[in-house]
Parts: sequence; structure tokens; C-alpha cells
Amino acid sequence: MTPPIITLTTDFGASDAFVASMKGVILAINRSAVLVDVSHDIPPQDIPHGAFVLQSAYRYFPTDSIHIAIVDPGVGTARHAVLLVTPQGRFLAPDNGLLTYVVADHQTLPRQRAEVAPFLRPFPAPVPGGCLAFALSRPEYWLEPVSDTFHGRDIFAPVAAHLSLDLPPEALGDPVDHLTCLNVGPKSRRGPVQEGRIICVDRYGNLATNLRRADLPGNSIRAEVGGVTVCGPARTYADSDGLSALIGSHGYLEIAQKNGSAAVALGIKVGDRVSVQARDEDTEE
Amino acid sequence: MTPPIITLTTDFGASDAFVASMKGVILAINRSAVLVDVSHDIPPQDIPHGAFVLQSAYRYFPTDSIHIAIVDPGVGTARHAVLLVTPQGRFLAPDNGLLTYVVADHQTLPRQRAEVAPFLRPFPAPVPGGCLAFALSRPEYWLEPVSDTFHGRDIFAPVAAHLSLDLPPEALGDPVDHLTCLNVGPKSRRGPVQEGRIICVDRYGNLATNLRRADLPGNSIRAEVGGVTVCGPARTYADSDGLSALIGSHGYLEIAQKNGSAAVALGIKVGDRVSVQARDEDTEE
Amino acid sequence: MTPPIITLTTDFGASDAFVASMKGVILAINRSAVLVDVSHDIPPQDIPHGAFVLQSAYRYFPTDSIHIAIVDPGVGTARHAVLLVTPQGRFLAPDNGLLTYVVADHQTLPRQRAEVAPFLRPFPAPVPGGCLAFALSRPEYWLEPVSDTFHGRDIFAPVAAHLSLDLPPEALGDPVDHLTCLNVGPKSRRGPVQEGRIICVDRYGNLATNLRRADLPGNSIRAEVGGVTVCGPARTYADSDGLSALIGSHGYLEIAQKNGSAAVALGIKVGDRVSVQARDEDTEE
Repeated sequence: MTPPIITLTTDFGASDAFVASMKGVILAINRSAVLVDVSHDIPPQDIPHGAFVLQSAYRYFPTDSIHIAIVDPGVGTARHAVLLVTPQGRFLAPDNGLLTYVVADHQTLPRQRAEVAPFLRPFPAPVPGGCLAFALSRPEYWLEPVSDTFHGRDIFAPVAAHLSLDLPPEALGDPVDHLTCLNVGPKSRRGPVQEGRIICVDRYGNLATNLRRADLPGNSIRAEVGGVTVCGPARTYADSDGLSALIGSHGYLEIAQKNGSAAVALGIKVGDRVSVQARDEDTEE
Repeated sequence: MTPPIITLTTDFGASDAFVASMKGVILAINRSAVLVDVSHDIPPQDIPHGAFVLQSAYRYFPTDSIHIAIVDPGVGTARHAVLLVTPQGRFLAPDNGLLTYVVADHQTLPRQRAEVAPFLRPFPAPVPGGCLAFALSRPEYWLEPVSDTFHGRDIFAPVAAHLSLDLPPEALGDPVDHLTCLNVGPKSRRGPVQEGRIICVDRYGNLATNLRRADLPGNSIRAEVGGVTVCGPARTYADSDGLSALIGSHGYLEIAQKNGSAAVALGIKVGDRVSVQARDEDTEE
Repeated sequence: MTPPIITLTTDFGASDAFVASMKGVILAINRSAVLVDVSHDIPPQDIPHGAFVLQSAYRYFPTDSIHIAIVDPGVGTARHAVLLVTPQGRFLAPDNGLLTYVVADHQTLPRQRAEVAPFLRPFPAPVPGGCLAFALSRPEYWLEPVSDTFHGRDIFAPVAAHLSLDLPPEALGDPVDHLTCLNVGPKSRRGPVQEGRIICVDRYGNLATNLRRADLPGNSIRAEVGGVTVCGPARTYADSDGLSALIGSHGYLEIAQKNGSAAVALGIKVGDRVSVQARDEDTEE
């Protein structure tokens, strides 16, 4: 009886008809679907950015929501389109790393991965316990004909609409036991210094790292990034006149510049290193 | 009982209150309307672009949808505002060429037009058989007072809302038998070469031509555009390392550049020519 | 029974997950809410711009709508978050001037303020008669935990959702009798010349002044702005080949440049002066 929610996270932009075509397809199958745009301004083909935006948003939606995420440089090639069913939502995406944080939220990715695979390099991770994954392979739930260039409209949209009509997920394709994930976990800590990486730059130029509060080596920290030292965590952006380090609303340590762009100020981009250690007045726990 | 769908295609942008004002007006008349943005980033006053984006989207919506399209350099002047009722949707727009492809989808525009009217020059085309068109002339369905600068909010929005409440279309104004269309049809083919034009450049820099698959002189073709030859049609963007020619998701022959902008690479803009001929290994059908 | 409308006006942009997180929070509390984006492209931290866009939109929505406006450089500091209940809508915003025009629409701000406070400087204005205001202070209606950086998601969104479920406004916090307003009213007229200011520049470069039709010193006027004289008011943008002065769709005197940006043509920005006097052929009323 409650209308189903379907969210959309893509790199399609809002200028062309791509997103609207998907919405038309969904509404033609299930007119009661509530459609919510997460973002269509993921930088083109930037899978790590799309993965981060998706994780910032999905956890605030009802757990019966369906989340479509499409940043898909490999559209029309052999990559799978997948459905991941979790206790906190259902996810439809190409199997290329977009679901990295969703997988990580349901099963800690091995920390030593940081040593095994280079940063951001995709690797196959097991589907977390309590979750199910399927490769979308049943064309009876797709648009006919399927184009080779726009699976968002021709596969993901109709599949999401059918799911929202309570089609069982196993009807959509065969189970898979691994999903492609990006290596974005923090390195194991070596001594007093925790190394991390910049994983996302938002529109304000704020730098999100891959370090959560639990990864920090103390309650007061000193972060080194781009040759500059920033103390924190601050409570608000207004606390400092210049750079500040704080736990962002997404739950990750963030480097921000008041009334400006930390990315520009520091010349920093995704993948760059940050190292964090406890400040003197603080004992490591 | 099913909620009515109203889509919006404009050049109003998303920064100001224009679009939201229209939505407020619609919801004040019919709160059960489902509002879908097609695009508000049509380049300002670019009627050909708006017409193309509308045609890429509308065919994926349920056939009882109402589509508002507004790119209206002549707002407040003598141009008509019109309603076009087709078996595949109802359309509200200024009568300036925005409905060109909708008209063409319901009745083949004469091919020889390419010789009669210069490319993109508007001409009056008969309303297709099976369709009806009306000039919006009944102020009782408009906002009061009507501004001279914002008919989207004051005329199109309330008219769409009343239509969505099942007002008969003939209540909105007097029938018209011609609509303004842009001359975008391909030229008649002369010998082995089919000439076409670039009709839209999307945000990726992909170049859409006015040639559909049926217009191509063979199953394998060689397209000349901007002094460069591109073979095709390719199946996906990933097939080639550089330029490719493929049938885009909108159904038209498209020139694309992998991981880049074909428009920039070739220095091409809307209206430029493309010529296509069959490749040697292929016999013209 | 009618679904409640909640609108959103922010400077969050559409690229990140900020807006979608708010929508997820709202829908998790009240899935029947109809969510309408007014704009998320308010220039970052530009309170006067946000206030103007909000006033251009809200009056077209049903009077039971809930409007969230967030441009909040002081998030996490001592500024109040407030609810303003008016006969024309309910408004949720930080108490920093965003509700200036809403307050002014319900109670004329004192004209002499122009002499008292510098232009755009915030001052405390009494809550208009017939309206009620409350400081949001009851955490039981907030997300738990509340971040220090994202009150949109953690306070405004859940409060709006609870309001939309008919929670009485007084349950949300203590009444306040003053709200922060920007000084944007026109100066008292001195003789034949009415002085005004530019209060908003829209995406087309049109310049909105703080003068309504009733403020003009005649039916035909001559406006001086940026060293140039423009006659008006024109009826439509198409009336003139160059600059025109007309009453914009928002109800304010506007300086526009046909097929171009008046802001660029005149080198004008928000806060710059405009002076208006009656034209010779017209007697001041």
C-alpha cells in the first residue's frame, strides 16, 4: 500500500533526456513509484565518486527503497548488471565498483586489501552474509529491443519497476557470489600514524577521506595533507578561519576550507594521501 | 484513478524559481499530478535543441501523459500557445517548432522540404491525421492576471493541470490545422550518398544527425563529417578507441568520441553537414 | 487526505547527496509527502539570493505547503532554526534573513529602515500579526544523532516531515517574537526620484530591483542604472532591441537585455543603486 521509492544516481547530467526516459519507463510499468534523484552530476565515468555519493544518500532512505546507480563506461560490454539485496535497501548497478560502500557497510572489507590491491583498483569481494546478489539476465523484464548504449533505460529502469511491484529478485537472473569492489579501505595502522586517502571531492571542494572516526588514532588529531598540517576534529565549518579537519555529515574525516575550496587551496585530488596522528595533549586509546 | 503525469521541458534552468512556480500552480489545481522534469537546461532560446530533447523522452512515457515544452523567445508576442493531442501523448508548447519531431512521428514530413525551406527554417505543417491541435485562447483556464513574460506559469501550467483533471481539449481554445515545424528531415538521397545534418549536440559532445537507420544507404556505412571519415555503425561506445558512428539510444545516427567530445574533436556544431555512403564490403539495399 | 507538499530551497547543489539525504529522511517519516525542488543552486551562502528565490516561488503553492529554505553559513553556531507559520504557508529556515520577503509580504517592513540600517544588513523584525514563529528546540523531532554540519538533514527535514503529519507547530519549540530580516525595502521617496537597489541577478543576467509597481513614481518611468538610462515599463522582453525595464514575473521592476545579460552589459551586481523618475509625458500620481 505504501508507494515504493526508487532513487537514481547517474552521470547522465540533467540537460539531456536520459534521466527522463528512465523515469518514463518506470512510471509506465508502475505509476505509483516515488522517484527521487540522488544526483545526475557524478563526473562522467567516475565510478569512485558515484560510489561515494550513493553511500552518503542510501542509508537515509526507507529500507524497502530501490536504488539505481549508473556510472557505466563498460555499457554494452561483458560486465554484468547486478541486483544486490540487503537489509537496508535493494541496489541495481553495473558490477564495476559502484556498490563498494554498500558491500562494505554490510561486511567489513579486509583491511589488508590495502596492501594487496593498489588503491581504487577493483577486486572481487564476496557478497556479504545476509545479502543476496543476482546478475540481471532475464530479458523478459527488459525493454524490447535493448539498445547497446543505454541500459539505464532499457534494463535498469524496467527491472527496478518490476521489483517495485514485488517481483521476487531471483526472477531477474542467476545468483552471483562475488561483486566488484574498489579498494578504498584504510591501511592497517603502523605505529602512531594512520594513513588514508582522499576518496571524494564535493562541490564545495571539501575533501572526504577514507577514515571514519573509529579509524582515528585519538580524540584529537593532526592530519597532514598536501604538505599542510590541520588539527581536528573541529565541530563545525565555522570553528576555524582557514582549513579544518572534521567528521563530515557522511561519517568520514573531511578536510574543509572556510568560505573556499580545500581542494584548490591544497592542490589535492582523489587518491592523494592523508596521514593522521594523535595530538600531544591526547593519549592514543 | 491512476495519477496523471505531467512532464516539463524548458530553458528556465534550475537556479531560479521559474520551474517551481509552475509546479506550485499545477499542484494547486491538481495535487495528484505526478511531475517529471525532462530538462530545464535546454540552451536558452534554442528551439531545435528543445525539440530534440522532447522527442528523445516523450515516447517512453505512458500515452496519457501531458508534456509541457517551453523554449519561447517570442513570449508575449503574437505566436500561439498550442495543445497537440496525439495517440502517444498530449503536448503543450508555444507554436514555434518545439513539436517538430512529435508531428513528424505521427506523419512523415515531406522529404522534399529539404529543398524548399533552408535547414531549421520553420514552416507550417498540417496537423497529422489522428491528432488534434488547439490554440490556447480561453483565459478562464489561465492564471489571473497573466503576465506578459511568464506564460509557463500563467498559461501552460494551469492549462496542463486542468487537462490532467480531464477537461476536454476543445474547451481550451479553437482548433488549428497547421503547426510550425522546423525543417529537419533528411534530403532525398542522390545516388549513393545520403546527406544529413547535425541536429543536436548532447552534454558529452556526441553529435546526433537527422538520419535514422532506415535513411542509411547500407548496413555498413562510412560517414564524413568535419573532414573526417568514420566507419560504422558500431554497436557500443567501447568498440572504438577514437571516433565512432552508431545508432544512438534516441534512434538517430550519432558520431561519438570515446572518453571525449566529438563536437570539440571535430569542431562541429548544430546544422553542420554529414554525408554517408555504403562501405565497399556492403551492397546498397 | 490530500498529500502534503514540502518544497526545498538550498545552496547544496545537485551534484552531491545532500538534497537526497533530506528527501530520504522526509520520506522515511511521511512517505506520502510530495517533494518539490525550488532550487538547489542558490549561490553558496548567498542569503539575499535565497530569500528572493523563495519569495518568487512560495506564493504559487497551496497555502498548506511547507517550505524548507537552507542557506546557512552559520550552521552549528548559535543562530536559531525557526518555523514561521503564515496564512500562506509554513516556512522552516535558519533565522538569518532567508524569510525576509515572507515577513514583508505579511507586514510592511518600516520604510525608514533604509536610513537606519545599511542595505542588506540584517535586523530583528517583529513577527507579523496573524503569523506565529517558533525556535526549533525539541530534539525529539530531530534525527539522532544530530551532526554539527548538516542541520538540513538532521533537523529541518525530520521537522518538516512531522509537521506534514499534522504535528502542532508549538510542539517543535518555544515561540519567538522577532525574526532576522534583511534591509531590502526601498527608501522613502525624496521628491520626484525614487531610489532602489538591485536585489537579485537571475541566470539570464536580468536585474531585479527592490521596487514594485506601487513604488514607481509614474506609469511611464525612466530608470538610471550603471550610468545608463532605460525607459519603461515595457510589456515584454521582445519589445526592445536592447535594454528594457519591465515589471518581472516576480512583481519587481527588472532591467533586462534582449538576448543577453543586463548584468554583464552594465557591469552591475546585487546592492548597486537604481534611480527611477517619471517620464516627461507622464504626470506623477
